[in-house]
Amino acid sequence: MPKSGITLRDQDYSQWYLDIVQQAELCDYAEVVKGCIVFKPTGYAIWERMQRGLDDRIKDTGHENAYFPLLIPKSFIMKEAEHVAGFAPELFEVTRIGKEELTEPYVIRPTSETIIGYFYAKWIRSYRDLPLLINQWANVMRAEMRTRPFLRTAEFLWQEGHTVHADEADAERETLMILEDVYADFAEREMAMPVIRGLKTENEKFPGALRSYCIEAMMQDGRALQAATSHNLGQNFAKAFDISFTDRNNTIQHAWTTSWGISTRLIGALIMTHSDDEGLVLPPRLAPTQVVVVPIYKNDTERSAVMDAVARITGEWKGRLRFKIDDRDQITAGFKFNEWELKGIPVRVEVGPKDVEKGSVAVARRDTPGKAGKAFVPQAGLTEHLERLLAEIQQALFDRALRFREERTADVASYDELKQQIERGFARAYWAGSNEDEKRIQDEIRATIRCIPLEQPGVAGKCVLTGKETTQQVIFGRAY
Amino acid sequence: MPKSGITLRDQDYSQWYLDIVQQAELCDYAEVVKGCIVFKPTGYAIWERMQRGLDDRIKDTGHENAYFPLLIPKSFIMKEAEHVAGFAPELFEVTRIGKEELTEPYVIRPTSETIIGYFYAKWIRSYRDLPLLINQWANVMRAEMRTRPFLRTAEFLWQEGHTVHADEADAERETLMILEDVYADFAEREMAMPVIRGLKTENEKFPGALRSYCIEAMMQDGRALQAATSHNLGQNFAKAFDISFTDRNNTIQHAWTTSWGISTRLIGALIMTHSDDEGLVLPPRLAPTQVVVVPIYKNDTERSAVMDAVARITGEWKGRLRFKIDDRDQITAGFKFNEWELKGIPVRVEVGPKDVEKGSVAVARRDTPGKAGKAFVPQAGLTEHLERLLAEIQQALFDRALRFREERTADVASYDELKQQIERGFARAYWAGSNEDEKRIQDEIRATIRCIPLEQPGVAGKCVLTGKETTQQVIFGRAY
Repeated sequence: MPKSGITLRDQDYSQWYLDIVQQAELCDYAEVVKGCIVFKPTGYAIWERMQRGLDDRIKDTGHENAYFPLLIPKSFIMKEAEHVAGFAPELFEVTRIGKEELTEPYVIRPTSETIIGYFYAKWIRSYRDLPLLINQWANVMRAEMRTRPFLRTAEFLWQEGHTVHADEADAERETLMILEDVYADFAEREMAMPVIRGLKTENEKFPGALRSYCIEAMMQDGRALQAATSHNLGQNFAKAFDISFTDRNNTIQHAWTTSWGISTRLIGALIMTHSDDEGLVLPPRLAPTQVVVVPIYKNDTERSAVMDAVARITGEWKGRLRFKIDDRDQITAGFKFNEWELKGIPVRVEVGPKDVEKGSVAVARRDTPGKAGKAFVPQAGLTEHLERLLAEIQQALFDRALRFREERTADVASYDELKQQIERGFARAYWAGSNEDEKRIQDEIRATIRCIPLEQPGVAGKCVLTGKETTQQVIFGRAY
Repeated sequence: MPKSGITLRDQDYSQWYLDIVQQAELCDYAEVVKGCIVFKPTGYAIWERMQRGLDDRIKDTGHENAYFPLLIPKSFIMKEAEHVAGFAPELFEVTRIGKEELTEPYVIRPTSETIIGYFYAKWIRSYRDLPLLINQWANVMRAEMRTRPFLRTAEFLWQEGHTVHADEADAERETLMILEDVYADFAEREMAMPVIRGLKTENEKFPGALRSYCIEAMMQDGRALQAATSHNLGQNFAKAFDISFTDRNNTIQHAWTTSWGISTRLIGALIMTHSDDEGLVLPPRLAPTQVVVVPIYKNDTERSAVMDAVARITGEWKGRLRFKIDDRDQITAGFKFNEWELKGIPVRVEVGPKDVEKGSVAVARRDTPGKAGKAFVPQAGLTEHLERLLAEIQQALFDRALRFREERTADVASYDELKQQIERGFARAYWAGSNEDEKRIQDEIRATIRCIPLEQPGVAGKCVLTGKETTQQVIFGRAY
């Protein structure tokens, strides 16, 4: 184990993840509340940056935020047949208020299609009310057998968009627009995490959806993580909750709805995409703190000169860089270096007496630890240098993750090849099997079809299992 | 009833409030979830602006956000004697997960002192860990007998700060700093709502607190609304949850904690401070949209010229003004004027063919409806004009509310005077009565001591009830 107290990735990837989460102080286990965690300030600050980036995109594409009740009458969940089958075992039920026993229990929302559907049915009368484009930031709860910080917890935080449309084409356009312009754009540009955009198979779709789309990312152990989903719900929920409207021809019709969500599990995705054996690695656009300045001195005279220089250097940073000056006394510079590496701050600026003399500073990149990532930079023009450097790091992280995914993705032509490749990463395969075939593969080799990519080769090939000719390619992977 | 469909304030203030809430589309009643409301987009957008203004101040004063579990083991609530007495009747209990009956139920947080106290006890070891300054944005639930949109709902949204300190002085300093620099500053500067800063009496303090401070505002019917509270919890919760630390002398001590919160009831306070018989009035700094531009035209030629002018005029507004161009066709300008007045947009800019010719626009202020608030303004320099105007409106709203409160506040020297004044507004009185005296007054005339103002006269007087000499003045009012 290295000095940081983090298990090496190569030794035990699962333990490495838990060590990062703990050592970087991202969360604590809420052992007194089954399956829950506490989002500690360092972890929550990452979520706040994610919220900002997503919320901007959600609003820029014409949606408004609203807030619906936490509790849902249990009978609502029962109204959509697939939905109840999917969620019933996981529900937290409220059966008492004060001393009053409830005749009909409430459930804590596991997702809000049903309660929101109830209100939409009241609000929507005419085609003029459509499309209705609403998003909600909320906490939700689902019982989980095995929990894992951020990735799978009983309570989690998310946004859930719920929209209503006059026809299938408009609902489908919305579903795909959210996938592409909101989710994939956010994942790739803010998180520096390359994603595959695709359609879920029947086995993997959302309970009650017509079609579910997703973005899938590869983690550093070659496994897949579903980073977001966007569902075309067809008329299923509209029929269950009677969301109907009078169209232009004065005919009453059921509407078409969509829902889409992204959650705090993205924090887990972020960790497992970029971090290393030294600790967390944060892409600059998401990092709550982008630059940490560590003053170095041995005595009061040096301290005074160094702190003056630091004040001067950082004077113009406000509003341009998110930074922190680590002026804690009685803690060594080396200890500070370790702490900020562990916490993933993208750039460290060191200022010592020699730097003051020379009019320079030392700049260290988190993404390339050690000497390779360290350089001496003149104080003049430093702000612009750092802005360029942060953009460069952002791109470098994306490129590295994309390269990794490509190296760990291979085309497979037989079940044997699929079995081998699945140990390494993603297997791209032609697929014409049934739902049962898919389930059998899952049972046999713990691999699932992560998605049917939106980008297809356009030429036919043979199904990896059945040998039937098909034009449809899929991505197999082992999922988180 | 005026054209807007809103009951006149003078006729029925309570109904006026409900009409505003409904007509401005701020919320919907969630009749299927007892005591809850839906925050519709227009209402939620106001809360988002409030969150931004508060969150900035909370962070600027050194606090970080975190997130703790929604559910609390019921036994936790029982650990602090006053706390359980205060909250037990209002609790929503989770007794089942899926098919599993829980041996110990959870409650949905009514407030989080207990669950957060549990974690703080784990995290804090030494004086070096103090102060611990954390805030949480969350939903909470408390059963309510009579609900009223925003003001009193079973589920509401809020922030709750929870801090830990090494001694009483530091806890008290924090409690008062939050009251003054965060809450009062936010209320007065962003909401344009003047507030009285004060201490709660023993009867009115938070269950489990040593001392509760508050800010109180006067609504347009002369009643008081508690806009925020900040509590010095002493060592009560630290003892109940064993939050202790090793001090500089290597002695183990119980810590001192504080908690403070502000909630979506502020939306109700905002409405009742500024709105009028035409609808909502929003102060510019909180308004999600500050300026609405209404183009006016009769035919396509006029439309084209007007829309060109609108594009030119608003070209430099992005990032300086929050604005909306209402270019809906087939809706009359008059209808649009009414709608935006109802929704409280501070400034309306009208652009018609004559304005295009003359190089001017018509600017109408929401806070002074009718001709008095309308002016023709040159297009050149319009952006600066609007920025100045918005600042002027913000100040005018504050001044008007302050004048109103001063007119409706009077010093009273006898119980008879108190009885009379309480029908009009606030009664300022010397007070040396007991808790029982205070309760008797509440029973008799429905007035409570809203607070003991931090600003005191410094000279003695006679208690309004007992005639005893005292230096302590209090504010009596009827509370929301």
